Amino acid sequence: MRRIAEVFGRSGGRPPAGDVWIGDDAAVVTVPPGRLVFSTDAAVAGVHADLSLTGLDDLGWKALTATVSDIGAVGARPSYAVVDFCAPPGTDLVLLATGVAAAAAEWACPVVGGDVTTASDVVVSAAAIGVLEGEGPPVLRSGASPGDRLVVTGPLGGSAAGLRLLRAGIWEPASAIAAHARPHARIAEGIVARHAGATAMMDVSDGLALDLHRLAQASGVGVVLHTVPVALGATEEEALGGGEDFELVVASPDLSGLADAFALAGLRPPIEIGRCSADPAERTLRGRPLEPAGFQHAIG
Amino acid sequence: MRRIAEVFGRSGGRPPAGDVWIGDDAAVVTVPPGRLVFSTDAAVAGVHADLSLTGLDDLGWKALTATVSDIGAVGARPSYAVVDFCAPPGTDLVLLATGVAAAAAEWACPVVGGDVTTASDVVVSAAAIGVLEGEGPPVLRSGASPGDRLVVTGPLGGSAAGLRLLRAGIWEPASAIAAHARPHARIAEGIVARHAGATAMMDVSDGLALDLHRLAQASGVGVVLHTVPVALGATEEEALGGGEDFELVVASPDLSGLADAFALAGLRPPIEIGRCSADPAERTLRGRPLEPAGFQHAIG
Repeated sequence: MRRIAEVFGRSGGRPPAGDVWIGDDAAVVTVPPGRLVFSTDAAVAGVHADLSLTGLDDLGWKALTATVSDIGAVGARPSYAVVDFCAPPGTDLVLLATGVAAAAAEWACPVVGGDVTTASDVVVSAAAIGVLEGEGPPVLRSGASPGDRLVVTGPLGGSAAGLRLLRAGIWEPASAIAAHARPHARIAEGIVARHAGATAMMDVSDGLALDLHRLAQASGVGVVLHTVPVALGATEEEALGGGEDFELVVASPDLSGLADAFALAGLRPPIEIGRCSADPAERTLRGRPLEPAGFQHAIG
Repeated sequence: MRRIAEVFGRSGGRPPAGDVWIGDDAAVVTVPPGRLVFSTDAAVAGVHADLSLTGLDDLGWKALTATVSDIGAVGARPSYAVVDFCAPPGTDLVLLATGVAAAAAEWACPVVGGDVTTASDVVVSAAAIGVLEGEGPPVLRSGASPGDRLVVTGPLGGSAAGLRLLRAGIWEPASAIAAHARPHARIAEGIVARHAGATAMMDVSDGLALDLHRLAQASGVGVVLHTVPVALGATEEEALGGGEDFELVVASPDLSGLADAFALAGLRPPIEIGRCSADPAERTLRGRPLEPAGFQHAIG
């Protein structure tokens, strides 16, 4: 029998005085006054990762990263996470926790609580809270206007390419393998984009075409793309439909302001991919129809 | 394909102006300044509920109730929840969500976000945040002192009895069936106990004997019980080891103050079961050794 305190230990460091991390019924944390951001995501072995190709630690990394990516995608800074581990008896929970803890350290979002239970699948469910710093609203999917320019924070399709290459027994390009096994959350980019006047934002978790479709639908705009940046080793199809890249797609009326803010923060320049149009039914790439293809969970 | 917005709809009501519930990357909620409480719990079909005996809605109820119970067990008031549904294709997610939403309404803890994914088990993972109202620290497991009296907020073993009866095809007593299918979280009791000077508290989720053992271990005290209140239809063994009753066990140096506060709040009187002793190795019930039996997840 292992409890969350045993599998996690003090990997996240020690809490500030008065706060309580792993080990009691609930964690106690201190947050600044104002609005909080709250999100959850689950990573399931066999669905989000093939454990014959990547490790339990990678599955743990992905679960936490997907959740903090959601926090970052509205322009907030992740603060604290709690994690449920569901796994068959004999699962190396310490290895699973190692990956969660590595991601928690990377995104400065310590794991403060959790639960361990038996299940026939390995499921890691990570919830996180985050803080909207300074004034101004969160950046939602619904705020884009016709004429806004669309950018992404990096090339896409790396995760899908990495999975395809691993399945073929190929371990390069390393960037594609890493994009699949250890994806990055674009926290700093989301925060900077919010302060630079982004009107709409989301993370590319299910594929650019599908996620852009959702942003366009929520905003009531069309989408006219002239290009899609393709990650090294990936195809354009993977860049459009692969998912789990966790790059941000951002709408902004002021592209040069956004680019300047990214440069000032030492971030990679945003990549312009197109613009929002006034026709809410319009979805095109280089003048041809853009299908909302992507990773959809076929349930129910 | 169903997304969380579809399975949940607006069951939790509408958010206040400026807040964002289900439908974007992350929820945005407003909380008072100060310390927050944060917890998560998972309910797994076949582990926490037998779906041939109770419904998917009951599984959803149990997941959210277990989580808000953890929040209440440190004396906090639950505020908001996020829920991950993992389920095989064809699962009635709307029924699952109905139970979650019913519990969210009962415990005044609206579901503001979530995620839906495919898995071979039905797993509901619920995370919640809560607020520590007014001054004073949370009530942890670790605060009991020798001489503190121990109370529980209600009779125990009802959930285990309900499961046993359902397995035998017996549908009464109704209170035991309900204790298993739709357990209660003792939120008001936890808040009142905190303000009435409780020194240690936890919810009985894995069985009184095991959970008291944990409280005693965290506090460095012994436990001397003279009685255990047994729920209608349950055995004393079920009351000691059954788990999932979600009643609170509370340590306090001032039992009459605690009882007065419960009465003033219109709550059932707390039931005294024993006291904390100075010998940290002592665990007795009516003078005989009390084994830390209970529900332990055999993992790892």
